[in-house]
Amino acid sequence: MARTGRRPGRQDTREAILAAARTAFAEKGFDGASIRHIAGAAGVDPALVHHYFGTKDQLFVAAMDFPIDPAKLLPQVAAGGIDGLGERLVRMFLTVWDGPLNSVGVALVRSATRSDLAARLLREFLTTQVIRRVLDNVTVDPAEVPTRGSLVASQMIGLAMMRYVIKLEPLASADPDVVVAAVAPTIQRYLEQPLKTF
Amino acid sequence: MARTGRRPGRQDTREAILAAARTAFAEKGFDGASIRHIAGAAGVDPALVHHYFGTKDQLFVAAMDFPIDPAKLLPQVAAGGIDGLGERLVRMFLTVWDGPLNSVGVALVRSATRSDLAARLLREFLTTQVIRRVLDNVTVDPAEVPTRGSLVASQMIGLAMMRYVIKLEPLASADPDVVVAAVAPTIQRYLEQPLKTF
Repeated sequence: MARTGRRPGRQDTREAILAAARTAFAEKGFDGASIRHIAGAAGVDPALVHHYFGTKDQLFVAAMDFPIDPAKLLPQVAAGGIDGLGERLVRMFLTVWDGPLNSVGVALVRSATRSDLAARLLREFLTTQVIRRVLDNVTVDPAEVPTRGSLVASQMIGLAMMRYVIKLEPLASADPDVVVAAVAPTIQRYLEQPLKTF
Repeated sequence: MARTGRRPGRQDTREAILAAARTAFAEKGFDGASIRHIAGAAGVDPALVHHYFGTKDQLFVAAMDFPIDPAKLLPQVAAGGIDGLGERLVRMFLTVWDGPLNSVGVALVRSATRSDLAARLLREFLTTQVIRRVLDNVTVDPAEVPTRGSLVASQMIGLAMMRYVIKLEPLASADPDVVVAAVAPTIQRYLEQPLKTF
């Protein structure tokens, strides 16, 4: 992946694979989409997909143009266990949104509000690359993961909307520590307090 | 306002006033925009603006194409005081989003993610027509209204995003009572628990 040789058409091939991946992940879901199928839709050999992008997870991150790899970041956050996980999640969320994710994140939210395909893609991404990576690594009843995950996601995306997209003050300019203190208890409650599953 | 006479140009005049109002509310804020200025920009007499739309608040609601009047709905919700306000707010929010607000609300969110002008308009609307109408009517320290209001708004818009726009399951299809049980304590905490103001 790190090779920088300029074979003719290489960039086109990469783009064709990414476009096929976006369509496949949106239409079939992450679990239902296969590298073989994506390669076929892009007119390349499956081995080339692996060569360019690595695993199916890595291909999804590339297809979303996501500037950080949740597979690297989130297991660290989850590694400390459920205690304090709300605080670690909100802090990490603000760090990436105040940094590399910002403009990409705003663009992702914008697309997801505009197109069903982009919304489905974001749903799949949140579920398979974000929620599972956090909640499968802590002591949460697997039957409750979807409910808890969607509640956590609702507060997190609402925070992103108000702080970074719509920019409602004083939340938009608030010090990250103060935001963490206010929002972390919400996330912690969604993670561990007794809830009726939806 | 209820007259249905078809004077030539009446619809155009109404639209010109609404367009001028949207621009003025976005550029000057609700408090800074005046009916006189809006009328001038639309090329009509201020009395005609009042005649068609009523108060400045009512004009704002019309300019947002908002299908319900927050001035009627929210004081009722706030009238019960701070106890249980989180639950009443979430329940009312789901009732209007599951009903008349749905498609208009999705369109509002979509516009606000796409255009700075629409984002400013939504910020002003949330602040002056929603947050103030709730929090000015309950026992909340006025200095804390912006912080608490923006936190409440973050969870509410996140709920709207996940349930109605991005449609993340199981939240998208969950029974309203179960959503209320899960989310109301968050809103209640943002309304009344000690917080550092931003």
